[in-house]
Amino acid sequence: MDSPWDELTLAFSRTSMFPFFDIAHYLVSVMALKRQPGAAAVAWKNPLSSWFTAMLHCFGGGILSCVLLAEPPLRFLANNTNILLASSIWYIIFFCPRDLVSQGYSFLPVQLLAAGMKEVTRTWKIVGGVTYANSYYKNGWIVMIAIGWARGAGGTVITNFEQLVKGGWKPEADEWLKMSYPAKVTLLGSVIFTFQHMKLLAVSRHNLMFLYTMFLVATKITMMITETATVPFAPFEDTLSRMLFGWQQQFSSCEKKSETKSSFNGTGSSTSKPIAVASDTVKKKHTKKSE
Amino acid sequence: MDSPWDELTLAFSRTSMFPFFDIAHYLVSVMALKRQPGAAAVAWKNPLSSWFTAMLHCFGGGILSCVLLAEPPLRFLANNTNILLASSIWYIIFFCPRDLVSQGYSFLPVQLLAAGMKEVTRTWKIVGGVTYANSYYKNGWIVMIAIGWARGAGGTVITNFEQLVKGGWKPEADEWLKMSYPAKVTLLGSVIFTFQHMKLLAVSRHNLMFLYTMFLVATKITMMITETATVPFAPFEDTLSRMLFGWQQQFSSCEKKSETKSSFNGTGSSTSKPIAVASDTVKKKHTKKSE
Amino acid sequence: MDSPWDELTLAFSRTSMFPFFDIAHYLVSVMALKRQPGAAAVAWKNPLSSWFTAMLHCFGGGILSCVLLAEPPLRFLANNTNILLASSIWYIIFFCPRDLVSQGYSFLPVQLLAAGMKEVTRTWKIVGGVTYANSYYKNGWIVMIAIGWARGAGGTVITNFEQLVKGGWKPEADEWLKMSYPAKVTLLGSVIFTFQHMKLLAVSRHNLMFLYTMFLVATKITMMITETATVPFAPFEDTLSRMLFGWQQQFSSCEKKSETKSSFNGTGSSTSKPIAVASDTVKKKHTKKSE
Repeated sequence: MDSPWDELTLAFSRTSMFPFFDIAHYLVSVMALKRQPGAAAVAWKNPLSSWFTAMLHCFGGGILSCVLLAEPPLRFLANNTNILLASSIWYIIFFCPRDLVSQGYSFLPVQLLAAGMKEVTRTWKIVGGVTYANSYYKNGWIVMIAIGWARGAGGTVITNFEQLVKGGWKPEADEWLKMSYPAKVTLLGSVIFTFQHMKLLAVSRHNLMFLYTMFLVATKITMMITETATVPFAPFEDTLSRMLFGWQQQFSSCEKKSETKSSFNGTGSSTSKPIAVASDTVKKKHTKKSE
Repeated sequence: MDSPWDELTLAFSRTSMFPFFDIAHYLVSVMALKRQPGAAAVAWKNPLSSWFTAMLHCFGGGILSCVLLAEPPLRFLANNTNILLASSIWYIIFFCPRDLVSQGYSFLPVQLLAAGMKEVTRTWKIVGGVTYANSYYKNGWIVMIAIGWARGAGGTVITNFEQLVKGGWKPEADEWLKMSYPAKVTLLGSVIFTFQHMKLLAVSRHNLMFLYTMFLVATKITMMITETATVPFAPFEDTLSRMLFGWQQQFSSCEKKSETKSSFNGTGSSTSKPIAVASDTVKKKHTKKSE
Repeated sequence: MDSPWDELTLAFSRTSMFPFFDIAHYLVSVMALKRQPGAAAVAWKNPLSSWFTAMLHCFGGGILSCVLLAEPPLRFLANNTNILLASSIWYIIFFCPRDLVSQGYSFLPVQLLAAGMKEVTRTWKIVGGVTYANSYYKNGWIVMIAIGWARGAGGTVITNFEQLVKGGWKPEADEWLKMSYPAKVTLLGSVIFTFQHMKLLAVSRHNLMFLYTMFLVATKITMMITETATVPFAPFEDTLSRMLFGWQQQFSSCEKKSETKSSFNGTGSSTSKPIAVASDTVKKKHTKKSE
C-alpha cells in the first residue's frame, strides 16, 4: 500500500502535458521569439516565415532529437493537434488587437506561472528522451544522456542554426565557453534520469521526477524574482573541477610558454593555486547571460 | 467512356519526364550555375567540386526531401542513368569547344522552350512529393504540403547551404522576408495537390496536373518575354492578408512605441489603413528579384 | 595452397584495428586538435565542449558516413569501449602533469610511428565504407565511392562544420579549389576498392589492402621526413586533365571575354597551351597546405 507521498508523486508523474503545460511552453517560447528585434515586422511581411520560426522555437528539442536519431525531422508536423495549438498561440500573440497578450504577459505573476509550467515540461521531455534512446541502444548510456539533453534543452541549437542560415546570427567563438543555465540543469537531469533508468540510483522514477521538477521550478522562480543569474552549481562545479582537473597548477606554468592564451584574462602567476582556478570559474558564472 | 479532354489530360499525366524534360531541367539548372561569377574557373581548377555543385543544382529538391524524411541524401547517386545524363550535360556545358552550348542557350526561343519544360517537371515533383509523404503519414497534410514544396522548389535551400559552407554566400537577413516567385507558386501547387489528394477538391488528379502545368508554363513564359517580375498573385495576397491580418490597423499604433521597426520604410502614420499595408505588399513585389 | 605472400597479406587484412591502431588514430587526431590556438584554454574552461570536439575529430568520418546514409549520427556514442579509449586519450593529452604527452609526441620517431599506424586505419575505413554502402545499393558504385571517401577522409567536413557553427572558422571561397592530399589519396583508394569490389580489378581484396596501405604509409612518412607537400600525383593529374579537359586551349580565349576570372593569376595569353594548365596545377600543389 503506497504512502500518500508515493500516491502524490505517482499521480504527478502521470499528468498529461496536454493542454495546459504545453500551452505555457508555447507561450513562453513564442514570447521569447517576439522579443527579438524585428520579429513583429517579419510576422507582418512574411507570416509564413514567422510561423515556421515559431514552430522551431516550440518544437526545437524534439527536432534535434529526431536529427540525432535519424528520424524524420518533419515528424512534429504530423501531430496536427499540437501544431494547431502552437499556431493559434503564435497567431494570438502576434496579431491580437492592441497587443493584449504581450501586455498581459508583462505582469510578473503571469511570467512566473508560465515559466514554472514550462520547467515541468522540461522534466517530461528529458524522461521521454532517455526512455526513447534506451529503446534504440540498450546499454548506450551516453546516447541516453545525449537524447535526454537534446529534447530538454536542444531547441536553442535548432533556432540558432536557423538564424545562422538566415544571416541574422553571427556565432561568437567564446559563446561556447559558457554553458547556459538551462543547458547545465538539463544535462544534470539527463544524467540523473539515465542512472535511474539503468538501476544505478535507488529511487523510483516518479519520485525522482517530482523532486527534480520541484528543484527546477524553485530555482527558476527564485532566479526570476531576484533578477540574478546566481546558479546553485558553483560550489559543486569547483569541487568537481579540482578533483578531475586539479593538475592545472603545474600544467599552467608549462603551458604559458607554448600556447597563446587569448581567452585568459591575467591569471598569469605561476604560483596559481586551484583557488585561482575556482575564482576564475566563479567569475565566469557571474558574467554568464541567463537564458 | 472518357471525353477527348480526359484522354488528353490522362495521356499528359502519364508522360515520362525521362529523358527530354529531365534534360531541359538539367540544362536550365547547370546554365544557372555557369552564370555565377567564377563558376567556369572552378570547373577548370577543381572539376570534381564543380561537378558536385552541378549535381546539387540538378537534384537539390529531392535531396532536401530525403533529409526531411530521414532518408539517405545520397540516394540520388544510386540512379546511375540520371546521374550519367546530368553529368554529361555538365561536361558539355562547361567544356564544349568554343562554348557552343552557352552560345546556343543565349537565344530566347531556346531559353523559353527549356524553361517551359522545366516547369512541367515541377508539377511532377510536387505530385510525387505529396504522394510519397502520404505513404509516410496518412493524415499528415502539413507534411504532404512541406514535402511537395521541398521537392518542387527546395533546390535553392540545398545550393545556398552549400555556398554558405563554402564561404561564397553571406545570407542577408531580409532575403527571407521576400518569398521568390518559384517558392510561392510551388507552395500554391503543393497546397492544391494535397487538398486534391485528400479528396477535398472535386477534380481528378490528371486534370489538375494539366491545368496547373499550363498555368505554370504560361506565367513563366510571359514573365520571361515581358522581362518583368510581375506576379499574378498580388490581388489574392492582399485579400488574404486583409482577412487574416486585418487587425494590423489598431496593432501598428500600439506597436510603434514598443518595437524597433528598422525594416519599415516610413509607414509611420497612426492612421495607416489596410490599404497602406496592401501598398507596402505591392511595393515589396515590384522589388522582388526573379529566380 | 597459398603462397607466403598470400598468407602475409591475408593475415594483414585480418588484423584488428583495436586497440593499437585505434590508439594511434586517436592520438594523432587529438594532438591535431590540441595544436589549434586556444584549444587548451577551452579544455580548462569548458571540458565538455573540448571533449565533444575531440570526439568529432576521432569519429568524424563515421559520423559523416551515417549522415549520408540516414543513420543515427549518435551511433558512435553507443560503442562504449572506443569512446572510453578516445576519452582517456583526450584526458591524458590535455590534463597530463607537465604536459608529458605533448612533449613525448614532439619527437619525430613517435610522430612517424603514429602517423603510419593512422594511415593503416584509413585503409580499413575505406574498405569498410565501400562494403557497407554495397549492402545498401547493390549497383550504386558512385555511392560506394562516396561512402568509402567519407569514412576515410570525411572527418574534416564534420570538424569544419562544427567550427563554422561555433564561429571559429570562416570558410574561404578558394579553399575548395584545392583538394588536400588526404582527400585525394582517399578518393583514389575509394575508387580502387570499389572497382575491386565490383570485380573490375583482377586482384584479391587482401592483396589490394596490403599494397594500398604500404603506399599510404610510405608516402606519408616520406612527406613528413622531407617536410614537403610534394605529392606523387602531379604527372597523373596533368595527363588526366589534358585527356578530359584538353579543349581548354580554345575554351579559354572565348571565355576571357565573358567571365570574371578573379581566381586566375595572369594566365592571360590566348596562346596558352596545356603545358600552362599543367604548370598552374603544379604551382597549385606546391602551395597546398598539408593535412
